[in-house]
Amino acid sequence: MTPAGFTLGELAEALHARLDGDPARIVTGVAPLESAGPDQISFLTDRRHHDAARTSRAGAFLVPDDVADLPGPTLQCPAPQQALIDLLGLFHPPAAIPAGVDRTAVVAGDARIDSTAAVGPLCVVESRAVIGPGVRLHALVHVGPGVDIGEGSVVYPHVSLREGVRIGRRVTIHAGAVLGADGFGFAFDGSAHRKIPQVGGVLIEDDVEIGANTTIDRATFGQTIIRRGTKIDNLVQIGHNVEVGEHSLLVAQVGVSGSSRLGRGVVLAGQVGIADHVTIGDGVIAGAQAGIPSSVAAGEKVLGTPARPLLQAKRIMVAETRLPELLQRVRALEQRLARLTERLGDTGPARE
Amino acid sequence: MTPAGFTLGELAEALHARLDGDPARIVTGVAPLESAGPDQISFLTDRRHHDAARTSRAGAFLVPDDVADLPGPTLQCPAPQQALIDLLGLFHPPAAIPAGVDRTAVVAGDARIDSTAAVGPLCVVESRAVIGPGVRLHALVHVGPGVDIGEGSVVYPHVSLREGVRIGRRVTIHAGAVLGADGFGFAFDGSAHRKIPQVGGVLIEDDVEIGANTTIDRATFGQTIIRRGTKIDNLVQIGHNVEVGEHSLLVAQVGVSGSSRLGRGVVLAGQVGIADHVTIGDGVIAGAQAGIPSSVAAGEKVLGTPARPLLQAKRIMVAETRLPELLQRVRALEQRLARLTERLGDTGPARE
Amino acid sequence: MTPAGFTLGELAEALHARLDGDPARIVTGVAPLESAGPDQISFLTDRRHHDAARTSRAGAFLVPDDVADLPGPTLQCPAPQQALIDLLGLFHPPAAIPAGVDRTAVVAGDARIDSTAAVGPLCVVESRAVIGPGVRLHALVHVGPGVDIGEGSVVYPHVSLREGVRIGRRVTIHAGAVLGADGFGFAFDGSAHRKIPQVGGVLIEDDVEIGANTTIDRATFGQTIIRRGTKIDNLVQIGHNVEVGEHSLLVAQVGVSGSSRLGRGVVLAGQVGIADHVTIGDGVIAGAQAGIPSSVAAGEKVLGTPARPLLQAKRIMVAETRLPELLQRVRALEQRLARLTERLGDTGPARE
Repeated sequence: MTPAGFTLGELAEALHARLDGDPARIVTGVAPLESAGPDQISFLTDRRHHDAARTSRAGAFLVPDDVADLPGPTLQCPAPQQALIDLLGLFHPPAAIPAGVDRTAVVAGDARIDSTAAVGPLCVVESRAVIGPGVRLHALVHVGPGVDIGEGSVVYPHVSLREGVRIGRRVTIHAGAVLGADGFGFAFDGSAHRKIPQVGGVLIEDDVEIGANTTIDRATFGQTIIRRGTKIDNLVQIGHNVEVGEHSLLVAQVGVSGSSRLGRGVVLAGQVGIADHVTIGDGVIAGAQAGIPSSVAAGEKVLGTPARPLLQAKRIMVAETRLPELLQRVRALEQRLARLTERLGDTGPARE
Repeated sequence: MTPAGFTLGELAEALHARLDGDPARIVTGVAPLESAGPDQISFLTDRRHHDAARTSRAGAFLVPDDVADLPGPTLQCPAPQQALIDLLGLFHPPAAIPAGVDRTAVVAGDARIDSTAAVGPLCVVESRAVIGPGVRLHALVHVGPGVDIGEGSVVYPHVSLREGVRIGRRVTIHAGAVLGADGFGFAFDGSAHRKIPQVGGVLIEDDVEIGANTTIDRATFGQTIIRRGTKIDNLVQIGHNVEVGEHSLLVAQVGVSGSSRLGRGVVLAGQVGIADHVTIGDGVIAGAQAGIPSSVAAGEKVLGTPARPLLQAKRIMVAETRLPELLQRVRALEQRLARLTERLGDTGPARE
Repeated sequence: MTPAGFTLGELAEALHARLDGDPARIVTGVAPLESAGPDQISFLTDRRHHDAARTSRAGAFLVPDDVADLPGPTLQCPAPQQALIDLLGLFHPPAAIPAGVDRTAVVAGDARIDSTAAVGPLCVVESRAVIGPGVRLHALVHVGPGVDIGEGSVVYPHVSLREGVRIGRRVTIHAGAVLGADGFGFAFDGSAHRKIPQVGGVLIEDDVEIGANTTIDRATFGQTIIRRGTKIDNLVQIGHNVEVGEHSLLVAQVGVSGSSRLGRGVVLAGQVGIADHVTIGDGVIAGAQAGIPSSVAAGEKVLGTPARPLLQAKRIMVAETRLPELLQRVRALEQRLARLTERLGDTGPARE
């Protein structure tokens, strides 16, 4: 439920903002510049939208410190993007969590569920699982044997957590994600691919977010690890024994092959693919659809398949545009040189 | 259940076809030219298969208006591909829907379920959800709070519909699809990525089809929208605030990044990726694996990464094949020109 | 449960290995060279790790026949990779399967479930389904009408098997996979895309493994077929009417379009895309992210988009790196040739 509204005075206090306007004025919601009405507060977090702000019908504006020429009261903050997050949290608090285990959930006798946790309808919680304080399992979640979910984590419907998966605190796992499926490991015995038992696990550290229908395989030995603060989008594949460093961002449909290691603060844009057993250094940024066959040093920006340093990749892409023309130019050069050579009596071929 | 069979006379009437053959003859099923037997009717919807039709063992043929030289009775239609759809509908009617809520489904007291709707085993329908007339929820579907599903829509097992998602009429959602998961929106506060609450929704208009394990994120504000008649294949990712126009086709594993807008009748082949905040005009066709970094004008055909106009992309691909040879030819030209220049007494370098 | 341990003598016998060391020594687990402790056995299956083996703290080593210089007892085998699989099977036997139907499962009265099969909590098994001996359905699996699952197959949570899907023996289907969703078939009738009913099925032969959240569509007519021994990774898309030959490997996020046929022993690396109606010969290997627009002959190795023979693709990739420089060199050649020509009194243009 959205609260009935806040006065601008209340918002200024909550957001530590400086108010230029009537503190008693009430706003009932947050909306973008184009769609906000007089009862709503809007926001200018990107200065490129200044013109849209000036013509907005919003009843108030959350703005950077030095913006004042808008058609309504302003709440001025040094970090308006962060203040917007707080503002949204005020108007859209997380739905209240009714603690307790739904009567239709199927919970093993030896699972330990904190009294402040919520287990939704038709969840299955298997033997020895541990569900921490304030955890919220939405409906139809599967928690395998011995899985451990840390305080305050939220798991959406149809998530599968295979045996032994360990989830930290304040982790969000979106619907349909699968953690702990067997890694893709086989050995050909001369007539068939034999499965290499995947006896490791998956470790998700605190404050990680995992997208819908994303898959993170269990390790062959040891752990596949997603470090603290990393955010993973939908339909991403993380192979066995991968380690993703802290505060990285993996956009939708990325694939990371087995045993590769990503550093801190890595950013992989959509549909990037990373080969197995490579190391991606801290802060690497890979452009959309990049194919990374080998290790990349910390701080590099890469693009393309095979991935190359960003500027080089862009120069190649520009040059490719001229490639058909280049073929013609070389042919013309060869012809001219041949004619010239012939005229001068040189008998060697222009093209070797 | 497949009906026992139809006479050719019945089929001719149902399909508005002209029958050349015995109207009392019975056929019991539909099969392709190669595998059809004497009890089955086959079809010639693509003239390239004319030879296969002439040698087919089928007991009858659905054909274009002007085809008559086949070894059996023919049903002649001006639009045989459309008639084939009708024919398949006769032999394979949708399974009868037993209206009602399965006794194992978990339905909130304030959900509104039409008396002609079917809610399958172990579905979870949360508070304030609205399930329209003739809707069929297969088993194990999750319908979140306030979700609205329009008349005649079909939802397959393990689909997740997060709070507030709105589904039009005659929509089909295949197994495992996730609609309304949070968009991938974060703001770095200097030490960690903070989540931007995603307070918008998802709107699916009438006659849309959504593939298995496809994910369509909720908007940050407002709606992520899939317009009327659009068909989306499996494992597709649609980011927050995207709008896909009417009657578009998105083939498997396509990814559309946040806030991009696709026009009417757009066709994206498999594994295409589209950057965020771009506009794809009406009728654009993108070839498989294209990577589209910026807006594309209506009617364009594009291919490649980065996507270029189709003919240019193909010319580049052909030219690339000759690139290694081109390097050698340029080296030869340089050497020849150097020799020639040397012979003529010019002292400048041939290569700069 | 992991057994308490084995003596090296027991292991030598079970693995048909030659023991160099004390047969009474007990090891309690298996671990890689770097992490193994004195109570664990490690393994040297790749000779490149010989140095790591010499400094390992492991209590024993599984090694190739001719390796003897390690700091502990050795079990020598001609095929250590295969012996490692057996060794892991000893220490990590599959969890005991409690036969029987969980009391919370919803099973149609006319489904046939073998008395040695296990049906987990909150599974739904629909009418006429057949569950063979020793089959294990984990929790929350959906088995559609008439589905047939062969002896010893394992199905993980949240898998959807649509009507009529047939699964062979010893098949593993990981969590969230969807088999038998409708193929992506539509015909435009001038105003809308009409759905072509997909009345075929899916056939999975023996010893196939299917990854998490992978989708395999039902055929329009006939069967989509995955042949014996083939292993498919996570998030793979197999279109309608595809046939994948025996003992092939499809790595994560591969997409195979409708009606294409893959031979035996095909290997598709991650994110490969294959067009529709093409034939991929036996033993073809496609590198990561390859885009395959047309048929590939048996035994070929291909790479790139569009896919080309491996060596050619690599030569093109190397040449691309020099493309920006090549443009400059051609420009220089043109200028030099123009100057030379001018000097010699030739009036024709160097660039045409």
